[in-house]
Order: sequence, then structure tokens, then C-alpha cells
Amino acid sequence: MTPPSKLAMVPFVSVANMMRLVHHVGLPVFLAELTQAVTDDFKRWPAFDKTPRVPAHSPGGVIELMPTADDTLYGFKYVNGHPKNMAEGLQTVTAFGLLADMASGYPLLLSEMTLLTALRTAATSAMATRALARPDARTMAMIGNGAQSEFQIIALQAVCGITDVRLFDVDPAATAKVMANLRDTGLNLTACTSAQDAVLGADVITTATADKRNQQVLTDNMVGAGVHINAIGGDCPGKTELHRDIVARADMFVEFPDQTRIEGELQQMPLDHPYTELWQVLTGQAPGRSRPDQITLFDGVGFAIEDFSALRYVYDRASGTDYVENLDFIADPDDPRDLFGMLARAA
Amino acid sequence: MTPPSKLAMVPFVSVANMMRLVHHVGLPVFLAELTQAVTDDFKRWPAFDKTPRVPAHSPGGVIELMPTADDTLYGFKYVNGHPKNMAEGLQTVTAFGLLADMASGYPLLLSEMTLLTALRTAATSAMATRALARPDARTMAMIGNGAQSEFQIIALQAVCGITDVRLFDVDPAATAKVMANLRDTGLNLTACTSAQDAVLGADVITTATADKRNQQVLTDNMVGAGVHINAIGGDCPGKTELHRDIVARADMFVEFPDQTRIEGELQQMPLDHPYTELWQVLTGQAPGRSRPDQITLFDGVGFAIEDFSALRYVYDRASGTDYVENLDFIADPDDPRDLFGMLARAA
Repeated sequence: MTPPSKLAMVPFVSVANMMRLVHHVGLPVFLAELTQAVTDDFKRWPAFDKTPRVPAHSPGGVIELMPTADDTLYGFKYVNGHPKNMAEGLQTVTAFGLLADMASGYPLLLSEMTLLTALRTAATSAMATRALARPDARTMAMIGNGAQSEFQIIALQAVCGITDVRLFDVDPAATAKVMANLRDTGLNLTACTSAQDAVLGADVITTATADKRNQQVLTDNMVGAGVHINAIGGDCPGKTELHRDIVARADMFVEFPDQTRIEGELQQMPLDHPYTELWQVLTGQAPGRSRPDQITLFDGVGFAIEDFSALRYVYDRASGTDYVENLDFIADPDDPRDLFGMLARAA
Repeated sequence: MTPPSKLAMVPFVSVANMMRLVHHVGLPVFLAELTQAVTDDFKRWPAFDKTPRVPAHSPGGVIELMPTADDTLYGFKYVNGHPKNMAEGLQTVTAFGLLADMASGYPLLLSEMTLLTALRTAATSAMATRALARPDARTMAMIGNGAQSEFQIIALQAVCGITDVRLFDVDPAATAKVMANLRDTGLNLTACTSAQDAVLGADVITTATADKRNQQVLTDNMVGAGVHINAIGGDCPGKTELHRDIVARADMFVEFPDQTRIEGELQQMPLDHPYTELWQVLTGQAPGRSRPDQITLFDGVGFAIEDFSALRYVYDRASGTDYVENLDFIADPDDPRDLFGMLARAA
């Protein structure tokens, strides 16, 4: 059999190669560059074809396709969310994605996105924090010390200059894991015994808890003036993290309102609850933080454009390196009308 | 770096391996088994979650995601259609697909589908022809001798006992290609100089022309009593193949009516034009052919369940063979909460 032609090949970034790429670039630099890539795409928000996620529900969870496109590039992510997986030693969330050329429809890059989703979620929080937190913010509270937490922390260190981190999780072992994982980062880390303890003196509070139900990891009395909150864990219908009173007192910033309405903290608010689209803050079309004592809330649920930015960034960073393998993914007959002949000659 | 765990691996069928698998099984057997797989799934039509295609349009074409699921399996296909690609030596249509486990959301199979789509489209025509053509049908007219045509012919030979094939294409070189490709199949092949010539004496007429516009490759006076028509080429908005009068005279059978309405020959008919859903014929809930002189028309546009069946069939046929490669596709940390630790240990 003749080897497949170059046209048949699609670059693929495996999990192992994504890890190699991140180490090659350096995690803080990777997160800073990715934050810029997401910011660049948010600044041209109207250029994107924005489609709601396409879900397939089962009793155990959901599988979703998240497509978006601009004039030249198309991207989609496949992602599942199955909370019961962890009990069976499986990941709750796995993901992969594809970037394609709009002009020809040909795939440009296939990539693992389990790791990349954690990275882009952290980059998105960093983008929101850079836009909305007080410029002198140096202390962060990280509530929920699961798979997302270290990436959230490193992104805020790299992009926003966070120096002190106060950690809390209902499971002390999760906090101990973060303390161990981040011991060489130069951050001052404090393990706290309650969420109330963790938020003491924090300029930025990031919540990334995992339970699929309405929680109140932050109540109104815990949040002082001038704080910026990234509420990352409330990200599907029926799952919220914050007490309604603190949501009501804060000024809310969102990604794609149609999605935040059904997945974010916005679920618990009336339909006329005011919010600002984050992209408009980034372009200067809407105010972000207007007073030092204002409480700003980024109600992050994750949106397809962030995955698009991540795929675009990895495509730029990995193309032509040995962090990609070429997959024989596209049939490329000598004569496009002769698919059968290609098959016959392969015998 | 430790090698990825078994859980991280997803079986992948490349184009080269799909060709090897087809040759290993034998093309006629592959098509007959695939026809049965599609039929089995059509017979349990109500069990599927049916979602319209999710398109992203550009001036040069369209990229679509086609998902569907039953209680246990999820499948989707990525497919593009870019008519101008051929002039640049690229395929008009390329595709790949994924099968996943609904219970865990974990991918089970990633596969090329450029070749597999041609195979499942032929299998679907064979399913419709077996259900709707006269049992004594032996002669087929194949109008449009492009990339689909040989697969359509072999499927009807394998599944429906077609012995004679009358070929026509506006480009005689395309017909010559089919004559050469099928010379060792035992079929009696006749190259015809017009569509009118090709349909003489044909019991089954399959049209698979490619132009993206309203054509009339078949007019009413060309189609005699008792014929079954597979109209495969009219498969997107603004693209039809048959004269309205022959569509009006035939009894129409469709896949998913919502999609046929905007993509099939049904486009040119009034909203109250009668049709029968093919799955109901296969289950016996609706009549198929009721008279030998009836003209039956399968207005095929391609539906996600056919891709699901094809992925399921390839998964069953290829699992555990060396026609699959394992891709390091899913991050699998020792502790699912410790994605960061997995990354750090890979340094």
C-alpha cells in the first residue's frame, strides 16, 4: 500500500504531547499566552458564530458538542460530564477538540482537551480577574481544591500578580494536595479550616466546587467590599455555589448570557437581574470595576469561544514541532471522484 | 515519562486501516453487513435521540456536526461539504466520527468517515431498495458516476441481487472510470449516452449527481411503471435532482422528515405532500410497495443514525484487531482530582 498523502494527514496532540508542550513553554508562560489568546478572541466577540451547546443527556451525565467559528476557522469541543465516574476511577470530565479551515472544511488540528480545558478555564478566570479585580489585588482565596484549582492559582499568579493563596476544601486531603503541588511556585500558601477562614483578607475569591446541586460556599456576610469573585463551579443546570444575597450585592459579568442563564449563578436570579457581557468590558464598550469598594462577580460557565482560542493557540504553538503526530485521517484519492479506485488499489 | 494508562487510550481507525478492514471482510460482505446494521437501527427508530445537524456556513461550503444517541451509545460525525475543493485537488466531502459510551461519556472509537460515509450511504440505499423495489428487480440505472457510484452499485448487487447496470454521467470519463473499477465484479455493465438511454429497462434508478443546484436528471416521461428510485444526490438546501412531476407521481419514502424537508427532493413539494417514514416500512407499521406498477422514491439525504450504525458496525468488526491504533486521547491521572500532579510528574 502506498503511504497516505500529505493531504490525508491531520496533526494530533495527544495527552502526553500536550504535557510536553506545556513543560516546553513553561506553565506560567503557557497560561499567560493562553489568557491573551482568549482575550484577543473575546475582543472580537461579534465576529463569532455562537451556537448553544448540543447536549445528549443520560441518567449518569451529559455529552456535549460545543462548536463555534469565525470567518476563517472552525472549532468544536467534545466534552462529557459524568459525576459518578470518579467512584469508578474514571475522570468526571474528558474532552477533545478539533480546529478546521472554514474555506475548505479540512481539519487542521485534533487535540486532547481534558488538560487543555483546565488550562483555558484558568486562563478565562485570569482574563476576568485582570479586567475586574482591583489592580493592587495580591491575595486570593481558592475554595474547592480539586482538579481545576492549581491551574486557577498559577494563572492568577502569572497574569494578575497574586502572591498569597488561602486554600479551603471540605476534604483536607485535597488542600494538602494543592499545598504539595504548589510548594515550589514562590506563592505563600495557607491551608484554611473553613471557607470563612479562607476569604479573610482575600482580594480575589475563586470558587471551584464540584457538587451537582445548589450550594452556598460563599454567603453574603463573608464577602467584604472591593473583592472580585470568580464563580467557576456553578456550571450546569441545578448547580450553583453562591448564596443569592451575595450574587444580588455583586455586579455580575458573564460570557454568553443565553448559556449563563441556564448554567451559572444567574440561574437563581430573576430574569431582569442586571449583568454585563465580559467582552464588552474588554473592548471598552461597558464599564468593568468603577469603584475600589465594588464587588465584582465573574459568573464563569465556560464557552465555546474559549475552546476555540485554546485550539488556535495550541495550533500556533505546536505546528511544525514534534509535539504533534500526523494521523491518517482524511481519504485523499489521486482523483477525488475515484474513492473506489483508491480503495481497490489498497488491496 | 510513564506511558499513558489503558484508560487513556481510544481506538482509532485510520483511512488506511479502514481500507484494510474493508478488504479483510470483503466489500460485498461489508456492505451487506452494514446494510443489516443500519436496518437494525432503523427498526428501533424511536429509541434514538434525534437532533438536527449543527451547521457552520461559509461562502465556500458548510461544516456540520451530526450527533445521535440511544440509551447506551452516543455517536457523532463531523462532515464538510465544499464543492469548490475539487478544483484545488481536495475532497468535496471529508468526515470523521466518534462513538462513545453514554454511561461514562468515554470515547470508544474514533474513525475516519470519508470512506465510511460512502459505504453507509450505499448501505442505506440498499436497505431502501430491498424494502421498496420489486423483488424481481435485476437491472439498475446509475446516473451520476462520481465517488459514490461504485459503492451504490456493489451494495445493490450484494443486497438486492442486481445483475445489470446501465451507467450515465455528463462526463464520459466518469462512466469509463466506473466501467474499469467494476470490470471484475460479474456485473453486466453498459455505458449509456444519456440519462434517457440509461433508464431503459431499469427496475431501479439511483441518481447521485453532485451539482449544488436544482437539476432535472430524471423527468416524468423517463420513468416507467414499477420502478424504484434512490435519489441520493439532492442532499442540501437548493439542490434537487428530479423533475417535480416525477416526484409528484411517485410514492415518497424518507429518513428524518424534518431534514428531508429542507435537503431532499421534498424541498420542491408543497408542505402537505405525502410521504412515509422508511423506518415504519421496515417495522411493518406502514406499507412499502403495495403494487408491482407503483413508482417508489427513496428521497435519501443521509441521517445521523446511519453514521451511528456505521460506527457501531466498525466498532464491532475492528475491536481487538490490528486495524485499530490506540491514541493517547484521554488524560487519566492516578487521582482524578490531581490533573496538575499528573502534569507535574510528566516534566
